[in-house]
This record gives sequence, C-alpha cells and structure tokens, in this order.
Amino acid sequence: MLIVMNQKATAEEIDSVVKVIESKGYTARAIPGGERVSIGILHNQGPVDGSLFLGLPGVKDVIPITKPYKLVSREFKSEDTVVPVGEISIGNGQFTIIAGPCAVESEHQALTIARHVKQAGAQLFRGGAFKPRTSPYSFHGLGEEGLKILAKVRDATGLPIVTEVMDCETFDLVEAYADVIQIGTRNMQNFSLLRRAGRAQKPILIKRGMAATIDEWLMAAEYIMEGGNNQVILCERGVRTFVHHSRNTLDLSAVPAVCKESHLPIIIDPSHAAGRRDQVIPLSRAAIAVEAHGLMVEVHNAPEKALSDGAQSLYPYQFERLCRQVRSIFGVIQNGKSNLKIAASG
Amino acid sequence: MLIVMNQKATAEEIDSVVKVIESKGYTARAIPGGERVSIGILHNQGPVDGSLFLGLPGVKDVIPITKPYKLVSREFKSEDTVVPVGEISIGNGQFTIIAGPCAVESEHQALTIARHVKQAGAQLFRGGAFKPRTSPYSFHGLGEEGLKILAKVRDATGLPIVTEVMDCETFDLVEAYADVIQIGTRNMQNFSLLRRAGRAQKPILIKRGMAATIDEWLMAAEYIMEGGNNQVILCERGVRTFVHHSRNTLDLSAVPAVCKESHLPIIIDPSHAAGRRDQVIPLSRAAIAVEAHGLMVEVHNAPEKALSDGAQSLYPYQFERLCRQVRSIFGVIQNGKSNLKIAASG
Amino acid sequence: MLIVMNQKATAEEIDSVVKVIESKGYTARAIPGGERVSIGILHNQGPVDGSLFLGLPGVKDVIPITKPYKLVSREFKSEDTVVPVGEISIGNGQFTIIAGPCAVESEHQALTIARHVKQAGAQLFRGGAFKPRTSPYSFHGLGEEGLKILAKVRDATGLPIVTEVMDCETFDLVEAYADVIQIGTRNMQNFSLLRRAGRAQKPILIKRGMAATIDEWLMAAEYIMEGGNNQVILCERGVRTFVHHSRNTLDLSAVPAVCKESHLPIIIDPSHAAGRRDQVIPLSRAAIAVEAHGLMVEVHNAPEKALSDGAQSLYPYQFERLCRQVRSIFGVIQNGKSNLKIAASG
Amino acid sequence: MLIVMNQKATAEEIDSVVKVIESKGYTARAIPGGERVSIGILHNQGPVDGSLFLGLPGVKDVIPITKPYKLVSREFKSEDTVVPVGEISIGNGQFTIIAGPCAVESEHQALTIARHVKQAGAQLFRGGAFKPRTSPYSFHGLGEEGLKILAKVRDATGLPIVTEVMDCETFDLVEAYADVIQIGTRNMQNFSLLRRAGRAQKPILIKRGMAATIDEWLMAAEYIMEGGNNQVILCERGVRTFVHHSRNTLDLSAVPAVCKESHLPIIIDPSHAAGRRDQVIPLSRAAIAVEAHGLMVEVHNAPEKALSDGAQSLYPYQFERLCRQVRSIFGVIQNGKSNLKIAASG
Repeated sequence: MLIVMNQKATAEEIDSVVKVIESKGYTARAIPGGERVSIGILHNQGPVDGSLFLGLPGVKDVIPITKPYKLVSREFKSEDTVVPVGEISIGNGQFTIIAGPCAVESEHQALTIARHVKQAGAQLFRGGAFKPRTSPYSFHGLGEEGLKILAKVRDATGLPIVTEVMDCETFDLVEAYADVIQIGTRNMQNFSLLRRAGRAQKPILIKRGMAATIDEWLMAAEYIMEGGNNQVILCERGVRTFVHHSRNTLDLSAVPAVCKESHLPIIIDPSHAAGRRDQVIPLSRAAIAVEAHGLMVEVHNAPEKALSDGAQSLYPYQFERLCRQVRSIFGVIQNGKSNLKIAASG
Repeated sequence: MLIVMNQKATAEEIDSVVKVIESKGYTARAIPGGERVSIGILHNQGPVDGSLFLGLPGVKDVIPITKPYKLVSREFKSEDTVVPVGEISIGNGQFTIIAGPCAVESEHQALTIARHVKQAGAQLFRGGAFKPRTSPYSFHGLGEEGLKILAKVRDATGLPIVTEVMDCETFDLVEAYADVIQIGTRNMQNFSLLRRAGRAQKPILIKRGMAATIDEWLMAAEYIMEGGNNQVILCERGVRTFVHHSRNTLDLSAVPAVCKESHLPIIIDPSHAAGRRDQVIPLSRAAIAVEAHGLMVEVHNAPEKALSDGAQSLYPYQFERLCRQVRSIFGVIQNGKSNLKIAASG
Repeated sequence: MLIVMNQKATAEEIDSVVKVIESKGYTARAIPGGERVSIGILHNQGPVDGSLFLGLPGVKDVIPITKPYKLVSREFKSEDTVVPVGEISIGNGQFTIIAGPCAVESEHQALTIARHVKQAGAQLFRGGAFKPRTSPYSFHGLGEEGLKILAKVRDATGLPIVTEVMDCETFDLVEAYADVIQIGTRNMQNFSLLRRAGRAQKPILIKRGMAATIDEWLMAAEYIMEGGNNQVILCERGVRTFVHHSRNTLDLSAVPAVCKESHLPIIIDPSHAAGRRDQVIPLSRAAIAVEAHGLMVEVHNAPEKALSDGAQSLYPYQFERLCRQVRSIFGVIQNGKSNLKIAASG
Repeated sequence: MLIVMNQKATAEEIDSVVKVIESKGYTARAIPGGERVSIGILHNQGPVDGSLFLGLPGVKDVIPITKPYKLVSREFKSEDTVVPVGEISIGNGQFTIIAGPCAVESEHQALTIARHVKQAGAQLFRGGAFKPRTSPYSFHGLGEEGLKILAKVRDATGLPIVTEVMDCETFDLVEAYADVIQIGTRNMQNFSLLRRAGRAQKPILIKRGMAATIDEWLMAAEYIMEGGNNQVILCERGVRTFVHHSRNTLDLSAVPAVCKESHLPIIIDPSHAAGRRDQVIPLSRAAIAVEAHGLMVEVHNAPEKALSDGAQSLYPYQFERLCRQVRSIFGVIQNGKSNLKIAASG
C-alpha cells in the first residue's frame, strides 16, 4: 500500500498518516519524491484497507500494491493445478470439452444429446437440473429428477457430469450426483455458497461474474480454496459491456492474465458469451487459440424446441464441426510448442 | 415480440417462422414494410423466448416488445406502493433517511452511532451483522450477536432496523430481528434467496446488481412479489463502468426510469456508489433532487477505525450537515409542487 | 511511478530495472517491502512511460503516481478559474444556464426559442450551425448561414452565443461569430482541433468524451491551456455504459472529482445524457445539487418538428419550470453555505 | 420503426401518433397485440428519428427496425469487398499481416524493423509520422520527415505503407506518401475527416472508436463510401470496459457480427487491445481463429527504448513466432473449409 500525499502536504499531515499506519501495527516508510512525498506501508499481513487513508488531510491517493489473494496465486504455488475428473484431467496441458444442453428436459433428450456429443469428442456432459432464470415464470429445471437423469446419462455413456448448484439447501443433493459442481455467474459472490463449496469433495467450476474483475473472481476461488477444496476450475463466459451484437463480450485476454496470476485451470463458455449460435464456433476456435484449458458448449438436438437458451445451442452437426476445428487448432499450437522446444534444445 | 426478416427472405423462410410461432400456440402476424417483412407475435401469455427465432433462416433480428415483468409494473398497478415500517412509511411522498455503520462492531459503537443519526434526523438504523466481503480474510460481521445488538439499539432509540441477509440458512434468524431485510448487490440474482424473501413477513430492500439492467432488477423484485411479499423497496447503489474516480457510477436516471415503469419505492445508497466520503454529501443532495424516496447512508463515529468501508462512512457532524441540506432541498421541491398545483387549480 | 517486482525477483532483475530508470536520466529508489521489492522513480520531469517496464523480467506491475496534467491541476493553481463571457461569469460561485435548440433551423425558430429561454432565465444561448451527426444522411446544420442567425439572436436578445466547431477549416469562421466555442464529445481527443482551440481568443467549452476518464478529459483541457488559452469550461454529458434506460449515464460524481483535481469550471448537459425529455428536469436538479457551475439544456419551441434531437428537447414551459426549480435548489444550497460560514465565525 | 403504446393508451393518443407519422410523409400501420397496440412506420426512406415519438402521450417505447446504413451493408452488396494494395489484396480470403513500430523514429529504426517484419512474413509496413497522443507533452511523431522515411522504407523493402492521418490539413501530405491511410480510434467520428477520406484515392483503414457500437462504426465507414471511396478496411482494436488486466477489451465477436452485416474486410489490432506485450501473441492467434482478414501488430527492434507504446511492441523474434503460429492456424482453418466443401460435394 502506498499513500500519496498532496504536493503541499504539511509535515503534520504526513506525521498523522504515519501514526495511523503505526496504530494498525504496520511499519510506515516515507518516500520523498521530486514533487511530493509518498508513504509506503510495510510488514502488513494480508491486504490493508487503504480506504482508511483516503479521507485524511493531505492525502491525495491510495494505491494498493499487494494482491489480495494468496492460495490461488502463482506466487504461492508456481506449478499448474490439474483437476482430475474420473479419467479426465483438466488443466494438464490437454484440452477438455464439456458439452450438453442448457437444461435437462427429459431422459430421452439428455441421452440423445450425450451420445451425440460423446461421439463428436466431448469428454464431459453438462446439463442443468436447477436453473437460475431471470424470470420467476421461466422453466427452472427438473430438480432432483434432472439429477437422476444425469446419473443415468453417466452410466450409459461414461461421461462425467457437470451440473450447477444454486444454493446451500440443495448442495448435498447436487454433490451426490455431480462429478463437477458448477457455480454460476450470478452466484460468483454468493459467499455462503462459496464457503459450502470449500467443504465439498468434488471439483468446483466457478464462472466469472458478469461484471467481475479478475481480482474479484480469483478472490471467489480463494474462498473455496480457503475452505479446503483445491479442485477449482475457472470459467470465463463474457462480461457485460455497452456492446450489443453479442449477449456478453467474451474477454479472451482473461486467459493469459489469469494464467500469469494463478495456477488454476481456466476454460471458456462461448455459448453464454455469444448468446447466439452463429458466433459460438468462431469464439470456440479463439478460445483454443489463446490456450484456454477447455470449452463448455451448449448443444441441443432440437434447439428451436429447447426450454431455455435455445438460440445459443448448437445443432449436433455444428458441434461436431466445432470439435474437429478446435482439435486441429490445438494440434498446430502443440506442434509449434514442440518445435520450439526442439529448436531450443537443438 | 417482433421477428425482423432479411430483405431477401423468401416466402418459405417467412412461412417457416410463422409455423414455429404457431407451434408454440401463439398467433403470427406478418407486417410487410417498405424494405422487408417483420412478423409480430400475438396472444402470448408472458414473454416469448425470442432467441428461438434468432438462428432461423432469413431472420435478421428479434425485438422484444412486451416487458417481462408483471406484478411490479405500473401498468399492472398504477398507484405508488407505500411500505410501512413501524410508524414510518417509505414511498408515501415523504423522504426517508436510513443511516448507520457498515457493520455492527459492538453495542457501544452501534448505540453511539444510532443516537447521533437519530438526532440528526435518520428514521431507520442500518448495520450489518452478516457481511458479504470480497475476501475470506476480512471481517464478516458479528452474526447473531450483531442482530442482538441491533435489537437493543431499536429498544433504546425507537429506530427500526435495516440489516442484510446473506443466505437462506440465516434468513429466519435475520427475519426475527430485522424490521427491513436487505438483499445485497451480489445477491440480487440469488434466486433461492429471492424466493425465500417472497415468503417473508417483513419488507425487503433489494439493491441493484452492479451490472443489472432495470429490467433485471425489476425481475428480481418480481420474484419476491410473485412469492407473496408485496413490501419491496428498491435501492440504487451505483453500477460498474469504466469510471474510476468513484467506486461505482451512481445511475440517477434510474429513479425517473423506475418510477415510470414500476409502482415500487426507490431509494439511493450514495455511500457504496461513491466509495469515498467526499462525494457522499453531493450525491445525497442529487438523490433528493431526482426525487428518490429516500437515502441509505453509512455513518461511523470513528471511520478511520471502522472494521469495514471506513473510507466511505461519514463522521456524525457530516451526516448532520447532509440531513440539513437534503431537508432543505426536499422542502423547495415540495414547495414547487404545491405552487404548481395551486397555479393549475387557480 | 512505482515498479512492483515479483516476490522471487532476483537481484539481477532488480538491478536491470534500476539501470533502465537511470538510462532515462531519472533516479531509482528501491523500497524493500514485507513480501517484495518496489522501485520508485524520482526526479522525473512530467510523467514517465511506465509501459517501458511492464515487460522486463521480474516486473509484476507498474503503478503511476503523478498525474499527467499540470496547467489544469489545482495543485498548480489553487483558486477557481472564472471564465467571463460578456457580462456573465462562469465558475464564479453563481450558476449559469445555457439553453437553446440542438440545431439552428431558421431565424424565426432561433429567435423564438431565444426569447423564451431568456425570459425563463437562461444567460447564454446555444445552437448548432455545424452539427456532427452519426449518419451522413442526417441534417448537418445551416453552416455559416446558421452562424449569422446566431449573431442576429445575440443582437436581438443580448444573449452571448455558444456554438460548436467541428474542424480546423471552419474554426476561424466559428470563432468570428461565437462567444463560447464548443468542442463536442466525439472531438474531445481530436488533438489538431484542441491545438487550434489553444490559439483561440474565445473561451472553449469542452465536452467529455463518451468513454473518457477524467484524466483524459483534463489532458484534453491541458492541450488547450498549453496552447495559451486559459478560458476552458468542462461539460459532463454522460458516459457510455451497459445501461439503456437513458442514452448515456450521467456521471455526477465527476463534479466533485473534477473540482478536487482542477480549478476549471464544470457544467452539466442533462439533455444528451438523458436522450429523453422526461429525465432532463430531474437530472438538471441533480446537477445543481452536486454544485456544478452550470447547465446546458436543449429547448425547442416545437420539439416534435425539430430537425435533430427533438426527443430530448424541452418545451419552453418545461424549461421555465426547470429554471424555477434549479434556482430554488441553488438558493437553499447557497443559504446552507452562508449559515455554515456564520456558524463557523459565530 | 415501431411505436409501442401503453396498455391503457386511448384511441386519441393512438390517433395522434398516427398523425405525427403521416405528417412526416410516412405510412402508419396499427398492429393490435394481446396486451397493447403497436404502430409500425412504413414507406420511410432511410431511418426515422424515433425520438420524435418518445415523449408523446400514451407512447411506451420506440423500437428501431431498419439499420441506418446502406452502402456498407451486405444487403446492399452481398459479395465481399476486396481492397487491393499494390500486389496485396485485403479481404480476398487470405490473411494479411501489417506490422511495424508505433511511431517512425528514424530511418535506421524504421528500416531495421521493416526488414525484420518482412522476413517474418508481414505484407505491409505500418509506422506513425503524425501521432495522436493523450498528452501535449508526449512525442507526436516526425511529421513529413517521418513520411519521407516511410517512402524510403517502401522503396527499400517493397512493403506498402500504412500510416495515420490526424486532420484535414495534413491529409494531402499523408495521401501523397501512404498506400493505406489510417483513421485512428479517437477520430472515428471526426466527420470532417471522414468526408475528406471519402474523396481520397487511397484505401482507408478505419479503427473502431473505443466506445463505438458496430452500427456507429459502420456509419463512419458509410461516410467514407458515401463520399465515393469504396476502399474501406475496418480495424477492431478493443473497446473500453470496466476490465483492467488489458488496456482495452478485444471484442472478437465483432468479426462474425461485422461480416454478417457488411461486405467490408475487418482486421484486428491486438497490440492496442492488449496494451502489454505478453497478451499480443495469444490475441493474434485468436484473431485468426475467428477469421478476421488480417492483423496489425506493433513491432520494435528495441521496445524498451521506443518513443511511444513500447510496452505493447513485440521484439522481432516474438513477431516471427507470431507469424509462424498464425500461419499454421490459418492453414488448418482453410483446410477444414476445403474438406467441408469436398465432403459437401462428395
């Protein structure tokens, strides 16, 4: 934390800032500059609430220096976290594809789609049993019935199941059925839910809030890890901006930024970012191209009849094309890396 | 819902859109325009999922016409909703001030502040017992102990209590103590919590999500009303934008916009919008000036020692000044209205 | 400028950052912290391009400390700038109202509106002769003919004229007629135009760009002042956000933020912020309430027939009401201040 | 244009909206719905100013249907526009790479970089002679001297030159030297400059404004085409959002969205989007992956000594890697398409 003083700050003002710092048990260090004095705070354990200084006389600005997260940070743990799900590993340098319908509507629907996506190359199956919806009048999922269908799909296809949990009340239930538990965008800062996820025995896939900074997103993951659950997967799904040709604006620079700051794997959900089918395949290719660790894509056998988010769901033949294209791109990127290593060692 | 077709859409394409509409039980009506055909959807009960049409051949755009909410809308109920809290009424044409610390820290702190704010003119006391915090390492409130302190403050001062609920688990507890139950920004679309709030016997104050449109916010209120609780107060607290001289950007045009669409009262939280003390008083005056129904302001007897959000908390003497200023402004606005009525009837 | 190093940055890495700093002629000062080293840059004249350090090995972050502007800053000149326009003074503690149509359409229209707004209390008349329009097919103003009409309006009413300049080619012409020259939102970073404005003999009213930070806006004013023209008025007109119930989101916290950083006067344009008539009066009252130095409002005698921006133009009777209301609010705020001073000196 | 009436709008109110429509020479068509009446506007030439209706009694909302642009739209011209530059063609199904320093600093610097980027695979050379800068105190380019250097670079390497024009005053000069004339982000709605570009004999590369919608961007291109210059290339360079881990947020869904609406080629500038070197290569790969028609990348032989934007400039060895990677990805995407065609015809 750096406290920047006004050019004309008096010695008394500087002194009184120093006293506040010391009253908190920290060490203050004045840094005289060309135009003004700044005061650094040392020996703090964890982040300092800089806002304490903003209103003091003579203070111009307060600048945080240390990041607020710890367990999720690459400075704390430098090697990549790999999250095993059955025989799959997410974040191990390969590329994972999760696919399925927005909501489980029936056993027939779920199984049909699961077989399609498995054949095309998906490694996990997604489907919502509990659906957060903007309107109380919309379809909210089949609930436990949906979870049972998901279990049948897993039995029939061998695909592990990713499904969303909406609250602590149904957490045990979801945890009993799911292989990966999803926390949705609107719950990214539902801290009670994050604490419960921290005690779960299953991996947590946490979506970025629609106006969350990377720091806030990583802090949400920190809640989960702080609770004892290290199996966390991040999922970028677009942020809200002034833009309207897509439902959200997919923030692909989040991938290199997260990978620099954190050891956690990060995947992309192009379906919710786009909100419209015709942008899903291009954005999926782009996700691979920035080296995200995976994709989560909505696929429906009859999108025009889907009970939710039909417009962004791919037809099975489109998903097949998507898988083929992203595999090719992943291949050339991997090749490029091997060549680089060969060249370097050559 | 209006389906806009491409200029060169064929008769078959138009026909197939019509068929999808009719398959849902709606009525389709083609509207030939100068350049292109549009197709209106009639006889729908509630909103149509327009996304179904976005991917159909020949479709250029899909435009929603009907708003998705019903119970909260002024078209459904034209007269203003007034929410009684003890002897206070929120939304009755007067102006309500809610004030208190971000978090309850001790009985002494809460009582001291409550007496200050009551004397200055606050009509309700706010204070957090359960605090949502970005970091798992921050102070999260005193929990039930905090609620008990709030009850003592109410007994001692007569001020009704506004306090936040974070989850369904602690809802009964909070409901037992609070006079108004607050749902925070990060929980605006925690639909399980909204459903529980719909069954509560106490008024709900629901803050706008930091990237929520007015439609989404009103839909959150719709969840609560749909559950049977009509006592809903909206609270604007700033939205997230690219701007950084304030923590959030206070969206004051939300007040006339909400009042046009909905019969629910709307108040302003200038403290979380600003994030810094020196903007709170100007924004409070502005809130009155746009005719919000009230203010919720953070006040602390020793902001520099507050356990949370100290930088945005007013000193008691500042809060007193705020109350004096907003009362004056409210007075001249009311006067202006009476003169207008006198002139009109004269 | 502060260079924050990685926790594990080596002595070599730190050393090489120091060398880059010194190679630029600055002084480097290492600041050892609890977890990591930071390096301050001293003795720089003007801002340092921090981006130079972002890619160096071992560098985690680069944090600017000094603001990039000088002449516009309150640290450079502490007393408020007052801009005289004829007998009016903008920024002198009073409140200035500028009003008129979006575009000058005819002598009759301009004169009619000017007489209305003068009677209601406007002190300057605004009207566009050269209009920036999103579409090449829209009405672009009457050009010099419009300027001549504006001059006639000034002669007839005594109101000084505010009108927009779009380019350097027509700057001399506009300068010959205008009393205040407006630079529009879309030209806020048209640096050639800013340089020309710096050589003008007339005051410049510069609107905030629709996605400009306050720093960028003040830097635009710095261009003008650096050219020798100290007569600069800032005008906030809403910024672009995800919000859609108003055309832009009026950022009223910009007023206290600008007044803290700069000595220049700042006024509010509620018409372009709202984009719709029914929000203009509430936002105008709010503008006064945050102590902006003035308002610029669109008024038209027949908004439904206006050639541009009719939807946001007030009818004359509405403008009259606006003036009455803002005067009352300004009065109570001034009163409050005098009372405060009396109390303080009492 | 669709005028949506209130549920309780009276016949008189509907009638008076119809009259306003007819007074403009359009045709009104009432569309009775389940809950409310809407009124369509037909036989309008070009877009209607819907704001005229927003304030009329009984009007709830006004919804534009027709897009405001014409010449740039794919409905007007369905085949892709290909822009020839010397022996290069931009938008012809191949992939074009433009590279070079932010600013031309010296003949030696420009030539050194040009030779590097040509060898790595760049097909055009970029470099600024006139530089728009946020600060009046920054380096603003060498001016005509810079243009002369660019001409020498073209002679020496055969690479066509892309350089920015800042104003009408220097347009002739820039046009005399450049092969492609760039209009920058901050000038996207400098309409005088757009009009001048419409009369130019050289292709125009127009960057998206930092808060511009696609409609506004295409309207800027419409200005140029309306003036008679059909050689327009669009360049996405990131938009301003609340995000701060990159300088801007690269909006890759703009590529499919623009290609659906318009026949103009669109390229990506990852350097200004990222603002930091380490994100440039991943975003470049992503740009290819969404099938942009090209890239414009900043490269410098000594970024740490660059006079502007050094932090985002690649080292030559990084640019070489970038070219290799994007070529591979472009290859597999093209392959995929041929296979698809073969499969389809098979």
